[in-house]
Amino acid sequence: MIYLDWAATAVPRSDLIGEANRLALQHYGNPSSIHAHGIVAENLIRKAREELSLLLKCKPSELIFTSGGTEANNKILNSVLRFLQNPRFKSNPKKIIVTGIEHPSVYNPALNLARYGFETEIINPGKSGIIETKNIEEKLTNDTVLVSAMLINNETGAIQPVKKISCMIAAYKKNSGRRTIFHTDAVQAFGKVPFHPHELGVDAATISAHKVGGPKGTGVLFLRENLLPEFIYSGGDQELGRRPGTENVAGILGMQLAASAQAASSQADHTRISALADLVLESLSRIEGSILIPSTRMEKRDDYSPYIIKASFPPIPGEVIVRALDEQGIMISTGSACHARSEKRLRVLENMGIKREAAKSSIRISLGHSTTEAEINRTMQVLDRVISGLRKTM
Amino acid sequence: MIYLDWAATAVPRSDLIGEANRLALQHYGNPSSIHAHGIVAENLIRKAREELSLLLKCKPSELIFTSGGTEANNKILNSVLRFLQNPRFKSNPKKIIVTGIEHPSVYNPALNLARYGFETEIINPGKSGIIETKNIEEKLTNDTVLVSAMLINNETGAIQPVKKISCMIAAYKKNSGRRTIFHTDAVQAFGKVPFHPHELGVDAATISAHKVGGPKGTGVLFLRENLLPEFIYSGGDQELGRRPGTENVAGILGMQLAASAQAASSQADHTRISALADLVLESLSRIEGSILIPSTRMEKRDDYSPYIIKASFPPIPGEVIVRALDEQGIMISTGSACHARSEKRLRVLENMGIKREAAKSSIRISLGHSTTEAEINRTMQVLDRVISGLRKTM
Repeated sequence: MIYLDWAATAVPRSDLIGEANRLALQHYGNPSSIHAHGIVAENLIRKAREELSLLLKCKPSELIFTSGGTEANNKILNSVLRFLQNPRFKSNPKKIIVTGIEHPSVYNPALNLARYGFETEIINPGKSGIIETKNIEEKLTNDTVLVSAMLINNETGAIQPVKKISCMIAAYKKNSGRRTIFHTDAVQAFGKVPFHPHELGVDAATISAHKVGGPKGTGVLFLRENLLPEFIYSGGDQELGRRPGTENVAGILGMQLAASAQAASSQADHTRISALADLVLESLSRIEGSILIPSTRMEKRDDYSPYIIKASFPPIPGEVIVRALDEQGIMISTGSACHARSEKRLRVLENMGIKREAAKSSIRISLGHSTTEAEINRTMQVLDRVISGLRKTM
Repeated sequence: MIYLDWAATAVPRSDLIGEANRLALQHYGNPSSIHAHGIVAENLIRKAREELSLLLKCKPSELIFTSGGTEANNKILNSVLRFLQNPRFKSNPKKIIVTGIEHPSVYNPALNLARYGFETEIINPGKSGIIETKNIEEKLTNDTVLVSAMLINNETGAIQPVKKISCMIAAYKKNSGRRTIFHTDAVQAFGKVPFHPHELGVDAATISAHKVGGPKGTGVLFLRENLLPEFIYSGGDQELGRRPGTENVAGILGMQLAASAQAASSQADHTRISALADLVLESLSRIEGSILIPSTRMEKRDDYSPYIIKASFPPIPGEVIVRALDEQGIMISTGSACHARSEKRLRVLENMGIKREAAKSSIRISLGHSTTEAEINRTMQVLDRVISGLRKTM
């Protein structure tokens, strides 16, 4: 079995998750309880938060544990709903700006907000898959309350100019005196490229545990200090009241342990995975009728994360290729798992200006820290054979 | 160590949680992925959902897995925000009705909704801690879009007349032709008393995994078929699009295994725990200056869950008692762990008409399926001694 669908979920770091589960079962008290069992559990969470804050170079209190990236994204996007409390909102609507290549958990909330009276502006990249900062700048107004642009696209690996966007927004805010929250979905970046929200200049950022080998069901919303958007969900006093609900102790501990392990070898992994990505790109270029997405990636490799590679083989449907490889014990994907069974999965590529046929015929190969050269060689051989075979039958 | 804080979190069923974790680590694919690893994980979730639906006597599609009770409660409460999409909302506000003894994850969202222009009606019980159906009926209007009343109160154990309320609302709906969603927070009832949402006649219900020995970070929102409130969070297609985000496979499997184990001995446990509760009540009555909350509980034992007992020892602060018992290795609580460190914890008792002093001096003893007679005897002896000692120093 060869697993090359790391962007959907990483191969779990079983030992570390097991260790986290053991700790959580041993110290099972409710972390909010004031007795011994509660206090031990609370301390475990505090320590995990501190460790994670060191990795991210931020304060522990700037991290809010959530049930995953989707919750973190929704949490910050939907925090703008607080403006609806103002009875004059309808006559003075607020704008939010997101890119057209965001994960569904940013894109769909943004579309929903339009139904509540927000003005939702969608910024698309060109065929490179990379947003141009000036296209966001042109749309920025005094009424813009939130901008969200992901750090690394989950379909193409395209690295977005988040630092440039944050500088531009900071300058705009300085001149206008307005507050605009700038959020980045860093789920595919965290643990793979250097990611420090303060250095990037973002106000909010989303990361997920299971994309770095941690448990599913845990993520973090980084929220810059003194930034106090009002969140929709309320309840108990957990996470300083910003994310109520009994803490998922095992999930939080597992996330920290996995993130720390990922960070320890992150730089070396990046170098090694870059070489493997080159191998994939070169092998792809030799397969009959293959289209690299974006087509310019070969010449501009540094603009893309080596962990994610997208290619298309028109007119063969992506699903057919995925299933054919699956039969050979190789797991890849068509694109985002979150929309794997629906036409919605074509949205990101279509918003890049990719033709529908090429989008439908696309596959995603995504690598992880333990991916080997042998796995890549075997996969590219099988892919070549599978594509040839499928072309003959079409 | 004696653990009598089961209402905050149950002693985990470690073997079953361990088994769930092992299965999830082994079948680590993203359940939305269309390759072999994804399909196996999807099937594990499907099987867990089916097993759970059998316990609840509902359809599998009526269960939405969430990150816990707090999310499930928030999800249904905040679903009324969809009415804000109607530009005429402000001139025609909608009403929601909740009880004054709800968990913070129902009560606080209800208060928040008032700030968005909803009319939030709070119904308080008398000193019995039990809501009267007619008090809700009186407030029900054609504009009422949601009623939420918990099944068993988490502070006093008071069993609420949810079946009566649902019949009353059903009759109202039939006469008026209006739609009102009736939700119950069944977190403290599930696995302890028979709980079948269709038999109760509720449209929506919340349950939590960690209150029955399952993992923290998993819960369920039961939502009656064909009921389609629009939820705030959006993203991928998971849970039929009603709860996006990569599924917490380990959490879901652990919840089902724990719930099934809980159900298997639920009836026998209830009988045994009722006898232990009697022992607690009688021991409490012999402690100097103790007040049972509600004071009528002795005579009306069947109106209260035997798993939760509340008593007060004015003027000794509840925290002092909790810490004194903690030093003796006995873990109890003052009340809801979610507000353990704040004055907000007094709200439920104050809304029952209990005086502030009695509320501040109250403790909660909560039992679980593995609580033994020896633990109760020891606890009541120590409590007696601790209270006597503290009285001498005050």
